[in-house]
Amino acid sequence: MDVALHPDVSWLAALIGTWEGTGTGEYPTIDGFSYLESITFGHVGKPFVTYAQRTRHPETGLPMHAEMGYWRIPGPGAIEIVMAQPTGLAEIYEGAMVLDGPTMVVDVRSTSIGATTSAKEVTITERTFSVSGDEMQYTFRMAAVGQPLQHHLSARLQRVA
Amino acid sequence: MDVALHPDVSWLAALIGTWEGTGTGEYPTIDGFSYLESITFGHVGKPFVTYAQRTRHPETGLPMHAEMGYWRIPGPGAIEIVMAQPTGLAEIYEGAMVLDGPTMVVDVRSTSIGATTSAKEVTITERTFSVSGDEMQYTFRMAAVGQPLQHHLSARLQRVA
Repeated sequence: MDVALHPDVSWLAALIGTWEGTGTGEYPTIDGFSYLESITFGHVGKPFVTYAQRTRHPETGLPMHAEMGYWRIPGPGAIEIVMAQPTGLAEIYEGAMVLDGPTMVVDVRSTSIGATTSAKEVTITERTFSVSGDEMQYTFRMAAVGQPLQHHLSARLQRVA
Repeated sequence: MDVALHPDVSWLAALIGTWEGTGTGEYPTIDGFSYLESITFGHVGKPFVTYAQRTRHPETGLPMHAEMGYWRIPGPGAIEIVMAQPTGLAEIYEGAMVLDGPTMVVDVRSTSIGATTSAKEVTITERTFSVSGDEMQYTFRMAAVGQPLQHHLSARLQRVA
């Protein structure tokens, strides 16, 4: 977009673009797995940033997970994320955004997880994103299907656009 | 996509594509308004359909609303929608999909509306979509900011792709 980033989300400027990389996942109820990932952050000049993510199988290239939503900055250092999951979950995250030297760290926790009748039970989710220049890392922790909160995903991506 | 629609969402085949049209909105707390709209339904061969919507101002062309999410079919005649709103809302809808002659009607009501701390209060939302060939109409009803459930939006779109 040629339009300028809305001042409310200027703190998120470092995210705008497309990121690609690889990740791994684990959870007590499933086999470990790895994935290729693409994340795009965009904007239309309004006070939010769009987020769209897709993962693919590293050998077959077939689609695995996807999710999308919006990132908002309600005030200095604060962040809100609204996320839709094709697994039947609608998540609200809230948390903090801090600068650690050249690294921007976004640390959020679910405050609401809506679920369709057919969705699996997920009770808590936490995400930490770290962005430093053209490098992004994230981790994802989850309490789901009767398991306590624990590590589920980690990935490392690079800016490609 | 060249990939076939997943059998679980084959009932949604009539939606896949891009739709454009116009709509109008009203609510006791705001002035009436009109908008240009584009809706795209897509898929990647998995058991959900992606939904992305944007509206623009009819004179200035500037972006107004946007929302995105996933549509799911948990069983015959049933439908689940997961929706992320940049206004800070994460919605779950459930309802029914019926065929009325050549017209497919999707009628859903919110079962969960998660909200960020900074979001306006929305307590109930209802949507009805009607699709007949290349014509789509929808209406949207809402209880929000202390007002009872009532009509908010209606739009008429045509398939363009």
